[in-house]
Amino acid sequence: MMLCKPAGGHMDDQVRLSLDEAWALSVAILEQHGFSSAHAAAIARSVVAAQRDECHSHGLYRLLDCVRTVRHGGVDPCAIPEVIDQASGVVRVDARGGSSLLAFETGRKHLIDKARANGVAVLAVNNAFHFSALWPEVESLAEQGLVALAMTPSHAYVAPAGGQSPLLGTNPIAFAWPRPEGLPFTFDFATSVVARGEVELHRRAGKRLPEGWALDGEGHPTTDPAAALAGALLPFGGHKGSALSIMIELLAGPLIGDRLGHQTRPADGSGEGAPQHGEFILAMDPHAFLGADAETHLRQAEALFEGVIAQGARLPSQRRHAARKRSQTEGVTIPSELYEELVHLKDSDGA
Amino acid sequence: MMLCKPAGGHMDDQVRLSLDEAWALSVAILEQHGFSSAHAAAIARSVVAAQRDECHSHGLYRLLDCVRTVRHGGVDPCAIPEVIDQASGVVRVDARGGSSLLAFETGRKHLIDKARANGVAVLAVNNAFHFSALWPEVESLAEQGLVALAMTPSHAYVAPAGGQSPLLGTNPIAFAWPRPEGLPFTFDFATSVVARGEVELHRRAGKRLPEGWALDGEGHPTTDPAAALAGALLPFGGHKGSALSIMIELLAGPLIGDRLGHQTRPADGSGEGAPQHGEFILAMDPHAFLGADAETHLRQAEALFEGVIAQGARLPSQRRHAARKRSQTEGVTIPSELYEELVHLKDSDGA
Repeated sequence: MMLCKPAGGHMDDQVRLSLDEAWALSVAILEQHGFSSAHAAAIARSVVAAQRDECHSHGLYRLLDCVRTVRHGGVDPCAIPEVIDQASGVVRVDARGGSSLLAFETGRKHLIDKARANGVAVLAVNNAFHFSALWPEVESLAEQGLVALAMTPSHAYVAPAGGQSPLLGTNPIAFAWPRPEGLPFTFDFATSVVARGEVELHRRAGKRLPEGWALDGEGHPTTDPAAALAGALLPFGGHKGSALSIMIELLAGPLIGDRLGHQTRPADGSGEGAPQHGEFILAMDPHAFLGADAETHLRQAEALFEGVIAQGARLPSQRRHAARKRSQTEGVTIPSELYEELVHLKDSDGA
Repeated sequence: MMLCKPAGGHMDDQVRLSLDEAWALSVAILEQHGFSSAHAAAIARSVVAAQRDECHSHGLYRLLDCVRTVRHGGVDPCAIPEVIDQASGVVRVDARGGSSLLAFETGRKHLIDKARANGVAVLAVNNAFHFSALWPEVESLAEQGLVALAMTPSHAYVAPAGGQSPLLGTNPIAFAWPRPEGLPFTFDFATSVVARGEVELHRRAGKRLPEGWALDGEGHPTTDPAAALAGALLPFGGHKGSALSIMIELLAGPLIGDRLGHQTRPADGSGEGAPQHGEFILAMDPHAFLGADAETHLRQAEALFEGVIAQGARLPSQRRHAARKRSQTEGVTIPSELYEELVHLKDSDGA
């Protein structure tokens, strides 16, 4: 589900970094390229968390995107997010063209307070450059005892079911549920068959795509990653996944006063429209729903997780959480080629 | 997506009813079998709406279920729902063992008021007998200008992705979005590959299932509808659909203080547990999110719908809304065999 698996390459082509080293390298690269220390820290938290959980496509690899984007003027590296108290159940944060991550961190406390007070609340992030996984955000809310759901559109990379050309974003949806013991139950997936980052990793590795992932520029099925990147990904699960993807566009777009996927362009300067868009985060407080019975019902939920595992199936977050445990003692590994690119970026002047 | 297609059989095996006739027949059957007039009206509104939209598996056919359920003591046909004002953003309605439909209708006004006041609100229906489609409920909220999302677990009919035996409900999710002109954008689908009602229709028609729908009682793939009903359905979209299904169980179960799918049993008296469970309905008011800009952004959303249609793809609600238009002038058709069963029920004493 998440790309929490080896990115390819043998271990002897890999570089191992401690989490502290990964953090220091990330912050240094971001600050070198003009990000304020607040933005650099928010971005580094996200990419190091993804690398730690072996979600390679949202890990340190994404620093290349961040630098490319700031070079193309697609993100304001020093934007100061503005909080708008929109309604008793709604807080908006205008990212003002900066990264969604600092905007989320700025709005998070307000969202938590509103969810606790009302039972349910929404954080709407607007005008943000968005490149990150959503699970660190929903997981951070579940660690505060809340149930959380997040969605964001991306640029028009996906054809609707039955269509031929890109219209929808890859439109990820993430969910987290607090567990009485241990890490939250969390999932995060693109509503395309795969995340676009996975197609990019195939292209970088010179590998064909499995069938059923993508259409080429003429709307015909393709297994060529370059043709897929020039054509359209397909939604997961046919018409059902396509419907969900449309819902995500609507909630994280017009409902919060922001753009649809096809009204944005990638931050690399290609296409039409602005690169920034919105993110929709819903949080609910089980204690506001259930009062003193909340603990009893949260324990009931454990029966479902146990039932999944008992029949040999896997919980969505299991592999990621196992990777986290491993990384906390052993550090993370990234391909040497990527490491060299990153070190070069750390020392380059951004030209 | 919805089962909005001919239920099988030639036109000369069909009986045509006006919407008024379908309504009168439904109310008469329900009252004959002990439902209070409030419950009979709420149920008749749902099954006639489904029949009108050619969603046969949630249409008049479901009256057989309602009667069977009341005979087995699985539903209280006269329960009076109780409203609990749980939090400023949360209203609960205890269905007290009655149908979810009257409980929803009882809580609907409170949900609308809370969504308008706070921007976002949840209606939790508890201890309900649930058999109906969710789209009439979310569509009725969108007709009031709200964005709505509804979910309910059903009994354990579905294996999690990678598993072999039933654990999850078919766990439908429905969404509706208000459109400035015309009917809301609406979808409603089971997170199983198909609704269980579709498997039942195959069994009744003596037809094999397509591959990939179900497992038999040993956890092996099957195309025999009877074996599938004794085994497990599969989730749509593999691990992603399975994750969504788990989310639906959690939101419409423990979060609202109600049962998980596997803690319930069908209302026909088979299996263990109580037949009643919960339903989760979220509503959001675009005007609370956007103020005076709401109309502008709702119009923006139309570009997405137009983009889907322009490339030859279909909106989820299109077929259903076309059927509605047809039914409003021509009435509805049901198989004669079903019609005869229904007429018999109307005149029988429930023994």
